[in-house]
Amino acid sequence: MTTRVDVRLPGREYPILIGHGLLGDPEVVGRAVAARDVLVVTNETVGPLYLERARAGLAGRRVHSLALPDGEVHKTLGTVSRIFDALAEARFNRDACIASLGGGVVGDMAGFAAACYQRGVDLVQLPTTLLAQVDASIGGKTGVNHPAGKNMIGAFHQPVGVIADTATLATLPQREFRSGLAEVVKHALIADTALLDWLDANLDRLLALEPDSLVHAVRRSCEIKAQIVAADEREHGRRAELNFGHTFGHAIETATGYSGWLHGEAVSVGMMMAASLSQRLGWLAAADVGRLRDLLRRAGLPASAPGIGAKEALAVMGMDKKVLKGRIRLVLLKGLGKAVVTADYGADALEATLREHLNGSSA
Amino acid sequence: MTTRVDVRLPGREYPILIGHGLLGDPEVVGRAVAARDVLVVTNETVGPLYLERARAGLAGRRVHSLALPDGEVHKTLGTVSRIFDALAEARFNRDACIASLGGGVVGDMAGFAAACYQRGVDLVQLPTTLLAQVDASIGGKTGVNHPAGKNMIGAFHQPVGVIADTATLATLPQREFRSGLAEVVKHALIADTALLDWLDANLDRLLALEPDSLVHAVRRSCEIKAQIVAADEREHGRRAELNFGHTFGHAIETATGYSGWLHGEAVSVGMMMAASLSQRLGWLAAADVGRLRDLLRRAGLPASAPGIGAKEALAVMGMDKKVLKGRIRLVLLKGLGKAVVTADYGADALEATLREHLNGSSA
Repeated sequence: MTTRVDVRLPGREYPILIGHGLLGDPEVVGRAVAARDVLVVTNETVGPLYLERARAGLAGRRVHSLALPDGEVHKTLGTVSRIFDALAEARFNRDACIASLGGGVVGDMAGFAAACYQRGVDLVQLPTTLLAQVDASIGGKTGVNHPAGKNMIGAFHQPVGVIADTATLATLPQREFRSGLAEVVKHALIADTALLDWLDANLDRLLALEPDSLVHAVRRSCEIKAQIVAADEREHGRRAELNFGHTFGHAIETATGYSGWLHGEAVSVGMMMAASLSQRLGWLAAADVGRLRDLLRRAGLPASAPGIGAKEALAVMGMDKKVLKGRIRLVLLKGLGKAVVTADYGADALEATLREHLNGSSA
Repeated sequence: MTTRVDVRLPGREYPILIGHGLLGDPEVVGRAVAARDVLVVTNETVGPLYLERARAGLAGRRVHSLALPDGEVHKTLGTVSRIFDALAEARFNRDACIASLGGGVVGDMAGFAAACYQRGVDLVQLPTTLLAQVDASIGGKTGVNHPAGKNMIGAFHQPVGVIADTATLATLPQREFRSGLAEVVKHALIADTALLDWLDANLDRLLALEPDSLVHAVRRSCEIKAQIVAADEREHGRRAELNFGHTFGHAIETATGYSGWLHGEAVSVGMMMAASLSQRLGWLAAADVGRLRDLLRRAGLPASAPGIGAKEALAVMGMDKKVLKGRIRLVLLKGLGKAVVTADYGADALEATLREHLNGSSA
């Protein structure tokens, strides 16, 4: 069974197809790809597992492929340059399509290459990680890291379609699966208490990779994200809510040089910090913060990062791209399911929150 | 006196301000730049001449600057990377602005950096060459070259404003000025016989850099280009008309490795070839082709490229990005002032045209 979520943007619309075993199906993949020439961009981990399946789904097309090295550390302009080289070598033109097969890192780079090659070619996302299926493959954000910060260089480039095959999650390392769950929890926290209730009740089934539960979690996440993106594609307003937990999380990732922490793990701590700060401001009940802490613990996700200095995190946040006119705007909660983007908090409350969840001694 | 041309795109609008001596005027430049933080991107030739003037126009802003090496050979991803480094080093955020001070090469790279830094920051074009004032700075095309072709990597990123100070043309080498004239002639040929008449009558005044003539030529070019871009920002249709002479011209530039030929010189030969092919198809009178040949000769622009092999040019054109589904679409004329984008011509007529204007012996 295939579930469909439509992302409706001004003047454009694209489908997210979600189901178990979609990847090798030409009826599904072939219909989403209009182009005759397709470059499948994957990595050295995912390629050996799923490239042949993706090729089967793309039967009848002229398919080239490129396997990039695996890992966030390779998400650079230099690696994207290899995608350009592969496209040029294949003599692909502006009517070609890039298919991204892998997780968020591959998708961000393949998407950025699609945004820039001949000033824009089609992009199809074939996410194979939970994080990519519930978050990274949707919404059109693409880009690479710079020594000065994460995703500093990139473009908005919407895919023509997303095909999330939940069967591919079977080979995902458990730690990465749990990292992806952080974004599902995030979607629930910012916009949907019903999804939070569902997660409380079904987390064990999700962790056991029960197919219907996977499809439900991916579908609801996609619906929530699609709705927010549709309202604010370029992040001038409401889309910033999707950064819940991410300003804090990026600080952890940057302070550790993107190593040691998975994105969802950093976001997990970041969500706890955002919830904790919301509580300090009197916007969130202690019981709600406790409920979040319990859910994250059950999901195997961290609530603190004692190895990171609070002072260092603050310094890093000063360079975060959510900063407008020198003020640090944060996504906080005014109750479960109600995100607000605000700079309306005291420096003391922020510092106390950082000290609580990071290594406070150096602050 | 400042003349203003508005570029009206769906949902956005930006002004092109044209006049003699605008660059150092905070009333003009300051009003076009909303940002507090400005990175002026220029090159090692233009910087020493006009950077201080631009800084005067940007009085009151936090201004950093970066001088790139001069020349098309440096229009690469690696050079753009230096702009990213400068932005990150200045700790500029997404509310910063990049001001491009120079010709088309600087503008293409500064524009591409503006499109990508933090997924898009403001861009102001301060073109100092005729080519950039009448063409490159308008319309939002940005990008860099790849060994496989010109402008293979880039983005559409419209500026928030263009300020064309015709006084800066005084220091432009005459050969580059004549190269810029090719684009003015192009605008006349594809859309405006009145401008063609004006050029016939006023070419000598233009070549003498008579201020009113310069402003007129720049203004009419901007109006024509702005109208076409407004109708088709992403080049799905009519905008392709602006490539008149360019598919042939790019072949010359690529075949020579972007060296030896200025862009406008290659376009000049390309326009002659397009006109000649149009004549072979019975769409253009011999007298009209002759009139074009005379005008280009008076402007000191070439009508043929005997050093380039016709066969080589054809091979290069096979990789041109105007190719759709393997067919070479060309911009031809059905009379002066009436461009058409078409693949409706015989291979024989095309080859005969190439042989006429290039080195036919190797074809």
